[in-house]
Amino acid sequence: MHPMFTLYYAAHTCSLASHIALEDAGADYDLHRIALATTQQQSADYLAINPKARVPALATPRGVLTETPAMLAFIAQSFPQAQLAPLDDPFAFAELQAFNCYLCSTLHVAHAHRMRGHRWAYEESSFADMQRKVPDSVGACYELIETRMLRGPWVMGERYSIADPYLFTLAQWLEDDGVDPARIPGVIAHRARMAARAQVQQAIAQELTGSN
Amino acid sequence: MHPMFTLYYAAHTCSLASHIALEDAGADYDLHRIALATTQQQSADYLAINPKARVPALATPRGVLTETPAMLAFIAQSFPQAQLAPLDDPFAFAELQAFNCYLCSTLHVAHAHRMRGHRWAYEESSFADMQRKVPDSVGACYELIETRMLRGPWVMGERYSIADPYLFTLAQWLEDDGVDPARIPGVIAHRARMAARAQVQQAIAQELTGSN
Repeated sequence: MHPMFTLYYAAHTCSLASHIALEDAGADYDLHRIALATTQQQSADYLAINPKARVPALATPRGVLTETPAMLAFIAQSFPQAQLAPLDDPFAFAELQAFNCYLCSTLHVAHAHRMRGHRWAYEESSFADMQRKVPDSVGACYELIETRMLRGPWVMGERYSIADPYLFTLAQWLEDDGVDPARIPGVIAHRARMAARAQVQQAIAQELTGSN
Repeated sequence: MHPMFTLYYAAHTCSLASHIALEDAGADYDLHRIALATTQQQSADYLAINPKARVPALATPRGVLTETPAMLAFIAQSFPQAQLAPLDDPFAFAELQAFNCYLCSTLHVAHAHRMRGHRWAYEESSFADMQRKVPDSVGACYELIETRMLRGPWVMGERYSIADPYLFTLAQWLEDDGVDPARIPGVIAHRARMAARAQVQQAIAQELTGSN
């Protein structure tokens, strides 16, 4: 039987969030690795799947989905028995979505200025300046998450949700971004709590061994 | 009677998207203008409402919501009779959410490099370089929207949805961003179609007269 979903992913990218959520949901899926090192995301074959030339993308029986917050909400809604989001409470669902939107539009964007400055400027001097600011801009995001957003033990409180794999995924990069982990003990404890989960270990192992 | 919702907004910002959606929904709300010119968004009073120091924010009986895609989905779910999203179809809802996530994480971010370069760099030379790139980076977003995302007559096809006020709101800025409107006739026609709606005219008039 062909699996229901195919996740197009690359190791060390935000596609890990959706990968973990598929594991959490017990979904029937397979993986298709995209080699960023050879710019496979810009190949004609992949552009036919995702014209944005980015990962992740999720092929479903109805078509392809992109954008991590949308994919995470889709996984939660498609597998309600996994209880990955408060699907019957629009306010609580909106709070969860607001957290995920903050990650995609503010935290991930701040991080991207370390390696992807060419998206927003032309000059090498600008890229270097952007890199210098990353510890401050990414650090400010994590301080807000630490002090105002992360409820504990999970992002939204007592209930694990689709916010947890997304924060965990981005938090892989904070030391490389120059953020001092000692200033955000709650985020670091959350990351350790996530790393202890079997679903997370399974997803990471699959990505690092490159199984398709 | 106190209205159910209060929208904290500023004119000429992305808060207009949620404002139009509240009009579309027939919601009971009032408006509270935040004066960006005097950095009121950084005042202690406003930080108590939204520690992100940004607009929009939506005060509800359960608490404050932020992040446009999350607020728009909340409005759609809170007023199902307004039919602003395919609430009973997780795949179609995810496609809609993916569109809105693209606007918040890619299009709006590209635009922000014209005036808000200080978020991601330190040097005036970097800000000037970022400004030079905006016509290309924002233009590339609109070309993708024009050729691959906007279905017509509304963003998601025959049905008006919460994607429409969001695209309309950001499309206010494209000429100032240096994007040639002649290259994106579908986006321009969508903007005109939106501008003809009574709910859109009402929201804009309220913002420009500064009524609270």
